[in-house]
Amino acid sequence: MTLNTANLVELTLEICNVESVSGSEANLADQIERTLKTASHLSVHRSGNAMVASTNLGRAKRVLIAGHIDTVPVAGNLPATLHHFEREQVILGRGTVDMKGGVAVMLKLALELENPVFDVSWIFYDNEEVASELNGLGRMVRETPELFAGEFAVLCEPTSAMVEGGCNGTIRVEVSAKGTKAHSARPWMGENAIHKLTPALQSLSSYEPQTVSVDGLEYRESLNAVLASAGIATNVIPDLATLTVNYRFAPDKSASEAEAMLREFFSGYEVVVTDAAEGARPGLNTELAQAFIASTKTEVRPKYGWTDVARFSALGIPAVNYGPGDPSLAHADNESVPVGHLFDCEQGLRGWLTGN
Amino acid sequence: MTLNTANLVELTLEICNVESVSGSEANLADQIERTLKTASHLSVHRSGNAMVASTNLGRAKRVLIAGHIDTVPVAGNLPATLHHFEREQVILGRGTVDMKGGVAVMLKLALELENPVFDVSWIFYDNEEVASELNGLGRMVRETPELFAGEFAVLCEPTSAMVEGGCNGTIRVEVSAKGTKAHSARPWMGENAIHKLTPALQSLSSYEPQTVSVDGLEYRESLNAVLASAGIATNVIPDLATLTVNYRFAPDKSASEAEAMLREFFSGYEVVVTDAAEGARPGLNTELAQAFIASTKTEVRPKYGWTDVARFSALGIPAVNYGPGDPSLAHADNESVPVGHLFDCEQGLRGWLTGN
Repeated sequence: MTLNTANLVELTLEICNVESVSGSEANLADQIERTLKTASHLSVHRSGNAMVASTNLGRAKRVLIAGHIDTVPVAGNLPATLHHFEREQVILGRGTVDMKGGVAVMLKLALELENPVFDVSWIFYDNEEVASELNGLGRMVRETPELFAGEFAVLCEPTSAMVEGGCNGTIRVEVSAKGTKAHSARPWMGENAIHKLTPALQSLSSYEPQTVSVDGLEYRESLNAVLASAGIATNVIPDLATLTVNYRFAPDKSASEAEAMLREFFSGYEVVVTDAAEGARPGLNTELAQAFIASTKTEVRPKYGWTDVARFSALGIPAVNYGPGDPSLAHADNESVPVGHLFDCEQGLRGWLTGN
Repeated sequence: MTLNTANLVELTLEICNVESVSGSEANLADQIERTLKTASHLSVHRSGNAMVASTNLGRAKRVLIAGHIDTVPVAGNLPATLHHFEREQVILGRGTVDMKGGVAVMLKLALELENPVFDVSWIFYDNEEVASELNGLGRMVRETPELFAGEFAVLCEPTSAMVEGGCNGTIRVEVSAKGTKAHSARPWMGENAIHKLTPALQSLSSYEPQTVSVDGLEYRESLNAVLASAGIATNVIPDLATLTVNYRFAPDKSASEAEAMLREFFSGYEVVVTDAAEGARPGLNTELAQAFIASTKTEVRPKYGWTDVARFSALGIPAVNYGPGDPSLAHADNESVPVGHLFDCEQGLRGWLTGN
């Protein structure tokens, strides 16, 4: 069975209604592959449940347009349904925002744009919503790096159909205070590790996050405790208390600079890095990027969340996020995409890729 | 089989070597019961694995002497062994401190003191080291309150053979801050509950605990966070952060006064009481207590930990702790009692009960 790409709204509904929770993308990947293979202007390379469909027109430049086909678990919000409200039409259901609306736009354009002004590689991949090592984009880049040559990349993650450039980096550390155990009836025999976290928590609470300008975009940083844990029993003075802290840093800093900042910030505590990912500069100073922005007719904003644009950035390819749906509704049980976003993104990409 | 009470050191070893982890006291209870029943001056009432052995000599006053026969789990530290060091002899093993040394002293005196100057009720009970509702002393008091009439009680819990009067009360509360969840890439959309705990933690860290004089003893109070927990994922700003706080309060306060103090101390936070136990005043102003203290020839100190003396206090019976072993070694893998403590306690109780 192939997917019918004639009507963007129906295509979005159809794609949403093929369940593809991370790890179970095979059925949807099969349908996308068969649909792409109906187009003689595309050559399709599949690996697992990821694939790249490329035009090979000998254009001077190649651009990459990418989206993941998996979703977080369904929460009684499928099948997706179309609703007509007074001012707009909305599709409700799992994946509408993150990011099957974007996948529908990509698939329709991949089929229809037989003569784009750049060569285009359309990338559909699996396992974005789970552990990084499972990510289908990362896997294909390792397997077939030659398929990921290009001068600019667009990731169709939800941005409310605005252009969001680059992304903040993210680093997590465990900040621990050590004490000495004692019975809580005689606490003066020990030293309370929870109480010793007080200065760390004071520093966090009073920290004023920076906003950093990078390539003309303002990146808002943040520093937050996300987990706290201490204590083994209600009658024991704890000898260990740990805060897990997440620092989202602007893409002018490397992850190792972010780590150094945290070690300074929490000096006197034990600081262990549990994970870190580099940010991505927006890379908006190229001709390709400027043409893209002009075609989308929207404002350019910074992206705060970490997305797979950082994987393109690591390959030396400037990348932006641009897709239908409000990102704050991603993963929500009431996930829904305005139909207007779908058409805006379709037109933005179509105009850029056709030079109109 | 009965226990041989002729030699206090051997009796202690023998009692330690009958394993009686909470819930498994039957074998030891049987041996204690059979031993008590060899004495014609005692009438023995048994309930489950607890029992009371009473003299009924028509004395003007009756005193209660109590000890639990269960221990915390064995940690490769049985059989108990006697060691001869240069300056002292020590028995090592589970239960030597908490509190089979005390039980041995009780059993020997119960058998030997046929004509005490007061009537004596010797109380042996089970399940002290586990949940309060299982406590054998509590159960017998509910079943046969008439067996617990008396004017003074001694609990042979370890005190290094000093007299420790009364006990602090204890109350635990969960102190919670509420916030609003958000993705940690956009924390300004939420409110961080961990950060909101900062003032509570500052108050705790800078709190100067009081020392309160009650009936002539100085009770040292304390206020400590014993558990901390917050957060559901490393990319989510937590909407709930909770400290479990333990307040050990002097016996001049009721548990409800302690609760009121904590609600005031943590005003602005949600405060939920998870457990509370009244303290016990030392009750050292009676003639009986004064005679007891004189006989033991030791200093009287306050007890910081909560013990079953509070159960006697709740019955209106003044009670003190007095037993062999350093309480800070209770439950430790290297639990050990100096033989000197055993003899000190035996002589202290014997002198008081025989009027010498």
